[in-house]
This record gives sequence, C-alpha cells and structure tokens, in this order.
Amino acid sequence: MRNGTLLYAQSGGVTAVINATAAAVIEQARAKGIKVLAARNGILGALREELIDTSKESAAAIRALAHTPGGAFGSCRVKLKSLEADRARYDRLLEVLRAHDVRWFLYNGGNDSADTALKVSQLAKSSGYDLTCIGVPKTIDNDLAVTDTCPGFGSAAKYTAVSVREAALDVAAMAETSTRVFIYEAMGRHAGWLAAAAGLAGTGEDDAPHIILLPERAYDEAAFLAKVKAVVARVGYCVVVASEGIATADGRFVADAGGGKDSFGHSQLGGVAAHLAGRVKDQLGLKVHWALPDYLQRSARHLASKTDWEQAQAVGKAAVQLALKGQNGVMPVIVRSSDAPYRWKIEAAPLSKIANHEKKMPASFIRRDGFGITAKARAYLQPLIKGEAPLPYGSDGLPKYVTLKNVAVKQKLPAFEG
Amino acid sequence: MRNGTLLYAQSGGVTAVINATAAAVIEQARAKGIKVLAARNGILGALREELIDTSKESAAAIRALAHTPGGAFGSCRVKLKSLEADRARYDRLLEVLRAHDVRWFLYNGGNDSADTALKVSQLAKSSGYDLTCIGVPKTIDNDLAVTDTCPGFGSAAKYTAVSVREAALDVAAMAETSTRVFIYEAMGRHAGWLAAAAGLAGTGEDDAPHIILLPERAYDEAAFLAKVKAVVARVGYCVVVASEGIATADGRFVADAGGGKDSFGHSQLGGVAAHLAGRVKDQLGLKVHWALPDYLQRSARHLASKTDWEQAQAVGKAAVQLALKGQNGVMPVIVRSSDAPYRWKIEAAPLSKIANHEKKMPASFIRRDGFGITAKARAYLQPLIKGEAPLPYGSDGLPKYVTLKNVAVKQKLPAFEG
Repeated sequence: MRNGTLLYAQSGGVTAVINATAAAVIEQARAKGIKVLAARNGILGALREELIDTSKESAAAIRALAHTPGGAFGSCRVKLKSLEADRARYDRLLEVLRAHDVRWFLYNGGNDSADTALKVSQLAKSSGYDLTCIGVPKTIDNDLAVTDTCPGFGSAAKYTAVSVREAALDVAAMAETSTRVFIYEAMGRHAGWLAAAAGLAGTGEDDAPHIILLPERAYDEAAFLAKVKAVVARVGYCVVVASEGIATADGRFVADAGGGKDSFGHSQLGGVAAHLAGRVKDQLGLKVHWALPDYLQRSARHLASKTDWEQAQAVGKAAVQLALKGQNGVMPVIVRSSDAPYRWKIEAAPLSKIANHEKKMPASFIRRDGFGITAKARAYLQPLIKGEAPLPYGSDGLPKYVTLKNVAVKQKLPAFEG
Repeated sequence: MRNGTLLYAQSGGVTAVINATAAAVIEQARAKGIKVLAARNGILGALREELIDTSKESAAAIRALAHTPGGAFGSCRVKLKSLEADRARYDRLLEVLRAHDVRWFLYNGGNDSADTALKVSQLAKSSGYDLTCIGVPKTIDNDLAVTDTCPGFGSAAKYTAVSVREAALDVAAMAETSTRVFIYEAMGRHAGWLAAAAGLAGTGEDDAPHIILLPERAYDEAAFLAKVKAVVARVGYCVVVASEGIATADGRFVADAGGGKDSFGHSQLGGVAAHLAGRVKDQLGLKVHWALPDYLQRSARHLASKTDWEQAQAVGKAAVQLALKGQNGVMPVIVRSSDAPYRWKIEAAPLSKIANHEKKMPASFIRRDGFGITAKARAYLQPLIKGEAPLPYGSDGLPKYVTLKNVAVKQKLPAFEG
C-alpha cells in the first residue's frame, strides 16, 4: 500500500450520527496504519490549511465520538462552484492536499459535497496528482440519489415519530378544555421525508398525526382548514405535521421568514407552523399550539436509531476501504434487499450519479388525499427507525458526550485569501 | 377498614410521569382491595359523572401505564372558584361522590388542584359526609410550595438540559458559516425552574447555555443584546435559553401571543424565542435559529429522569396510604435530606400550606448578572435529572405506550349543566 495521509471533512448540516461515521473512518484507517487528518470546519479548513491531527486522540475518545452528536471537527455551509468559476479555490485545495501528502480525501456530506468531491477528483487526475476522492453520505433530509437512505435521517425520523406520538398523548389528554390543534414543524426544504416519518407515530385512521403536509404536494389552505375541522369534529383534536418547505401551487413558500438565502443558495425557511397556527386560530377559532424543534431534531443522539447508527458507521468503514482500494470518485451507498426483516449492504456508486441530484418522495408514498403516507411508505420508513443506539449516561443524568482535543497540524503554506 | 371506592382525577397540564403516579395509585389501592374510579378529563368528569372503572384494566396495562406519558384518563384546565361563588359545582361534586360511595378522593395536580381538594374536603366535613381528600403533587413548573420538587419537573428538566446540550453541539459545529445564535424557549409562566435546569447542560464559563433568561429577573433588551454580542465575540456562538414568562421591568410579557387568557386565568404566552431571534437578527445582524419544543418538553417520557419517575410513583403510593389512614386535606410531599447523594422521603403536608402558593426560584439560585444559575441551584437541580427511567421499545422502533380501555361506570344521576 502507498504512503500518505487521509483527509476527512464534514460538510453541511450536522446530524446525530455524523460523528459515528467519523469515528468509523478513524478507527478503520488506524487499523490499516493510515494517519487521519480532519479539516476544521469542513472544506473551509482544507482551504485555510486548518487541519486537525486525529492521531492525538485516544482510542477511547474516538469510540465516544461514535455516540456524540454535532460535528466534532466543525462543518460549514460553503459550496464550491464549477472548476472554471472557482478555479483558485480548487487549486488551493490541491496545494494543501499535496503539502500534507493527502492521498485519500473523504468528504462527508450531501449532494453538494458529492459534487465537490467529484470535481476535486477530476482536478487531481488532470493535474497528475495521485488522489482518491470518496463521498460519504450524510443528511437528515434523506434526499440523496442511489442510496436506500442517508445516515442521519433514520435518527431524525425516529425523533420525529416518537416526539409526535408523545406530544399527541399530551394533546389528547387536554383537548376537552385546552389545545385542540397541535402543529409540529419538521425540517425538509424540498423533500418531505422527515415529515412523512411522523406518520410512523400512528397506524389507525384516527391516530396522530392526522394531517401531514409535504412539500411534494401544493399547500391548499382551504383544503387544510377543512381537514383540520373535520378531524377535530371526529376525534376531538388534531395533530398536524408540516414540512418547513411546503409551498402553494404557484411556488410560494408558506413561510420564508426573512426571505433570505443561505450560502448554499437555499431560501432561509422557518415559521410554517406559526403561520398555520395563526390560520387555524383565526379561521376556525380553535385553541392551537405549535412546536418548532429546529436543531433538536437533528442532534438528538439520545433518541438515535440503531439502524441509522450502524449504517453511519458502515459507510465510514467502507469509505476507507474503497479509498485504500483506489476507487476514485465513488460513494459507499446503502442497498436494501428486504423490508421486513430489513436487509442491507454497502456498495460503491459513482459520485456522478449522486452529485446535485435530489431524491423526492415517490408519488406512491403519498396518500391520495395528500395528507398522509401509504403502506408502501411505511414499509420503507419503518426499519430505518428500528432499534435504540446505545448511549452511556453519566451520574449527572446527562449523556457522556466527548470533546476532542482537536490538535492543529503545523501549517506549511502561506495564508490563503479566498 | 371502611368500605367505599377511591376516586382519582388528573388536573392541569399533563407530564411525562403523571401516569406513573396514576399507576402507583391503582396498584396500591388494588393491593389493599380498594376499587379505583378515575374521572374522565379531570374534575369535569367528576362533575359530569363521567367516571372510568379502572378495575377493567389488566395488571400489565397498569404497569405499562407507569411508562406512558400524557394523561391516561384525560385532564382539564378548569379551576373551581370559592365555595360561595361555585357552590352549585361543589354540591354536585359531593353528590357524585356520594352516588358512587367515594370515600377517598385523590386529586393529582398543581396548586390550583390543591386548593380544590382542600375545599372539597372542607365541604364534605361540614356536610357530614365521610370523605378523605388528598392532593397529589404534579407539575413541570416545579412551583409547588413545601415539597422539594414536583413530579414531572425532573423529567422536563432532563429533557431541557439534554436537548440544549445536543443542540449546542450542533450550533458549535456550524457557527463559522451558519447560525451564531440559538434560542431555546422553555415553559414556565412565573417561575424559571425549567429554564434554569438548562444550566445543567454545561459547567464551564464558555459552555452552553451562555445566557438564561428567567422570569424572576426583569428582561432588559440592551443588556441581553450586549451579552449575546460579547459571547459570540468570545466563544464564536451563543446559546440562549429563555423562559416563556420573561417580562420587562414594567411587567409586560416579552411575547404574549394573542394576549388571551386560558381558563385558569393565566395569560396565554408564546413567541418569546421568535421575538428574541428577531431582535438579535435586526440589532446584531447575526444569523439566528430558535426552537420551541412546546408540549414535547413535558411529554418526553423517552427521556424521563429515573429520580422523577420514582418520585411520581412514590407520591401515588403514599397518597393511597394517607387516604386509607384518613389523613384528610394533606398532600404527600418530597422532603430532601441530602443533595449528594440525593436522599429523600415522603411526608404529609397540609394542603392549606400548598394551595394557591407559587414557589419561585430563590435569589440565591440566580447568578448576580441574572443570566445564569449558581452552584447552589446546580446542587439542587442536579439530582432531579439523575438516572434514566426504564422504557420498553417495540420492534417498530417506538416506545411501547399503552392505551387503556377506559370503561365507563354506569351513571346514576341526572345530567348536570354547570
């Protein structure tokens, strides 16, 4: 095997299990005698030559990393443009990789990151620099193409289903004299996977959630309010789960608080539940409450799915194996062979099939009335939230999360302004 | 021991462990050969003679009840006024109790419920009806007098501390290019106990949460924004926990969404985090996110504190024991004899000392700058979130929560309009 170091970087929104992937990458590389550097704050650290020497961390710290949420080395929302438009940054990246003899680059993120990893691999090839680039899947949005699911999604899905079931029990107990309508806002800009997962909270027709609003269907206020009214009349209360990304038929987001854009070019969303609550109150005169779990839903390692946690580690381990085999420009993806029992394995897929694609929910997963999920969706989603990922708690009643030392690697290059 | 039935009713906002109290009441009464009726939707069911026969539930169902959140028999927000003002309802209550030979009335709620239980006990006495009334403590607000803590609070406190720690790890990882300020809104109208519990999430000066806004201190926008700015400059990001009940020095709630009142006469609050986020964005120009867990924080049985769960059962068991001893007009309270290790026992306290009192945080629990908790607060709070209450999960990845049959008792009286 050739000499060199492996560079690992996290990208985009973090998850409850992205550090489990990181831990698996480091452990697998250590087992093969490979030194792992991590980029501080994702691709920014790679550009700025702010690298972390993970060999300074104990084996116990790396194992604890596998159950710690957040992004241990920092992540960022920075997307590189085309090779032509962002040439200076790509060149700098290659320069940093060369300076630290990086021969394997693992980029852990969503479809934007797959695109960056692909471009870096192409540039290295055309520059004659021997580098193997691997994309490692991650996103609570579950919107990556090819792979059965995305590490991070299953845990956020479990959080969503459990939270909605618990809150629904609360609402059911109080509805007679208190809140009649409860609205839960789930993350998901363009794909409604997380909101859909809330459907696992109940099985019967009158079980919560009674209404799921998905970005895959145009939001129709009149139909929504009529449905809320009917459910309250029949069940006594109504639990609604709304995806943050719902939009009306003419493409306007129901609530785009501020209306700005983040550095990925996505609209800044928020406030969907608050808006819907206001309409329910004003139009139906019903007492309403809403919840906006925001980052809680993607960092709730305390409620992580065991399936998700195992897959997060499996893609990390496979990424190192693929890298060492020199399989350039691929991503380890999850391939499902059976729903029940859930059977899956890891295969390599070309980054070109994943980069910049966005997997929405198939129409067959959405109930005809647009307000719920089908049995087919349930069969797909159920195994992803199965099992409880182990988590040690301290005597203080809090999970034992680790803080790494994150020792900086000595810089070898002049500073980069870019 | 005398013949008769025991009536159990839940009141006010439910919690993650109020059903654990119910389970303990039923199990203890069964062990003594006493039949337990439960009022459907709290005191409303007692007035309407809508009673549930808990003897129809299996022992396994009652045991499962002990780990199911929400309120299994329904609760309500209805407060009886003085004996004079609400005489018809008190008389009806006594009539229903007589009709079903209820000799022990256990009312599980907060300080309003303690007041009702006390009044019913007085009325029964003056009417010559042999009835023992017991208040059973419950409230996530932790604002009951006399008792060391209130069942329900410890679990909500654990949810708060864990959620804030997890979200803070997320924010820390992304702050460089994304959210700089994260605001978490905690329940608590007049007492900041839950927001204070978030302080357990960190121990060091720069650990999250960096700012806690308590209703015990007047909200000063300029001081708040200056503190946020300073924390972001020093730490890179800032995690804020705000109690829903914060108010300015002139007594105006920072956000009283709608401005209405619930049937307990409390102002309807909400939107504090959204308001603060808007100010941070507009005045400091920092990217901000906020979370409003709402009912999630009081129904999260999946994250219940073992200490809290044990206390919830202990007060239920003690309530039956006190009732059977004929200790009229008391509440089983938790008495602490040691912080570390936490030692506690149950004693009986007169309802008159608890009814309508509200326990705020002592000044010694609040840091001098008003933005955090002291070591004394930490010593008080820490044991309350200790331990993880056991919870069985199904093969579907969801907790195994029970739905009771809730078989209605045959009515004996004409309907009551009141």
